[in-house]
Amino acid sequence: MDTMLKIDRVPEPTLRRLPWYLSVCRLLKTQGEVYVSSTRLSKETSIVASQIAKDLSCVNIVGRTRVGYEIDNLLEVLESFLGFTTIHKAFLFGAGRLGGALLKDTGLKQFGLEVVAAFDNSPRIVGHSVSGIPVYHMNELESKMRRHKVKIGILTVPIECAQEVADKMVVWGIKAIWNFTPLRIRVPDDIVVQNTSLYAHLSLMFNRLDGLEGETQNDMK
Amino acid sequence: MDTMLKIDRVPEPTLRRLPWYLSVCRLLKTQGEVYVSSTRLSKETSIVASQIAKDLSCVNIVGRTRVGYEIDNLLEVLESFLGFTTIHKAFLFGAGRLGGALLKDTGLKQFGLEVVAAFDNSPRIVGHSVSGIPVYHMNELESKMRRHKVKIGILTVPIECAQEVADKMVVWGIKAIWNFTPLRIRVPDDIVVQNTSLYAHLSLMFNRLDGLEGETQNDMK
Repeated sequence: MDTMLKIDRVPEPTLRRLPWYLSVCRLLKTQGEVYVSSTRLSKETSIVASQIAKDLSCVNIVGRTRVGYEIDNLLEVLESFLGFTTIHKAFLFGAGRLGGALLKDTGLKQFGLEVVAAFDNSPRIVGHSVSGIPVYHMNELESKMRRHKVKIGILTVPIECAQEVADKMVVWGIKAIWNFTPLRIRVPDDIVVQNTSLYAHLSLMFNRLDGLEGETQNDMK
Repeated sequence: MDTMLKIDRVPEPTLRRLPWYLSVCRLLKTQGEVYVSSTRLSKETSIVASQIAKDLSCVNIVGRTRVGYEIDNLLEVLESFLGFTTIHKAFLFGAGRLGGALLKDTGLKQFGLEVVAAFDNSPRIVGHSVSGIPVYHMNELESKMRRHKVKIGILTVPIECAQEVADKMVVWGIKAIWNFTPLRIRVPDDIVVQNTSLYAHLSLMFNRLDGLEGETQNDMK
């Protein structure tokens, strides 16, 4: 955590690349490696070595001449910096298809996210639990917010109620919304929104695949 | 499909915004609306109206003065263009936590993706089925590829075998890989890769949330 204090704001493109370096380090560690060079990181991620050195210096990691970076050190700093070593509690809104699937993805906890409760309006699931996580009625949000210190809300409701649910989340104190709906929600400036629309990614993939079949090759990868 | 033939390559930023317009149209249709103005689309998506008009003209949609865009027409063209009206068959690789969750997300089919089979190495799940989708051993990939016409592979294996499984997918004829692992996989130039790392998105959100709490306000949204 000492390292964290000295870190200024890291540019977003760097932030997006850091998890790739982390994954390579995790992989190399399982293979018994102790050091990794920026050349090796470059080969594994297809990012130029000078960019990698720049990115890592943003989180105060400097390689040693000839040996490169110590993998254990890289793992420790990156996991801590990326927030994967601290458990962040979250509420999930909409325990339907995608929401229910996310409740079953226990992998999230490994990366620092623990869903402590879900909210829904359907009498079919309210009062039950999914993978051990209780599902409450939306009406109970206020009281549950008071009991748990939760700042993150995962939004997996149908688009018809996405904005309405987002508004409620903000009113009761949610500070960051992980938006899985394909709708752009509107929130006050001090609320963090992370959009992850699987369907938008799907259409990008379809489009590239069609382009590939239609004519030449794919240059948008 | 007639429209499709006349459409040249659409820029990627436009491609990323089109699903947002589609979502707004779906929403407005449920509310009984027939037309939508670019001003309204702008208000709902926080994208400037002139950009919206530009984006939509890329897929040959032109608004009418005063009334705007016909919602049914927008829906039809966008859904078709984005590939959501054609069923694309896919194989899923790695029916573990996240993979198993995706198999349960029946929403994907609504957006044109049908997972017809899953592959795994674990004796605990091979031979069984998840949400009606059969899980085969990786050894059976070759024969299953011959039987089904599948071009899309969803990669949800652990990072230790991500590259190896990706290599096999390519050898047996997969043309597009939807990569959910946090690893950058290396593939030939003519293979489409769509990266969707939930954990990378998670770390972006944590980082913004921490920045928000640490000092001033969030300007990276």
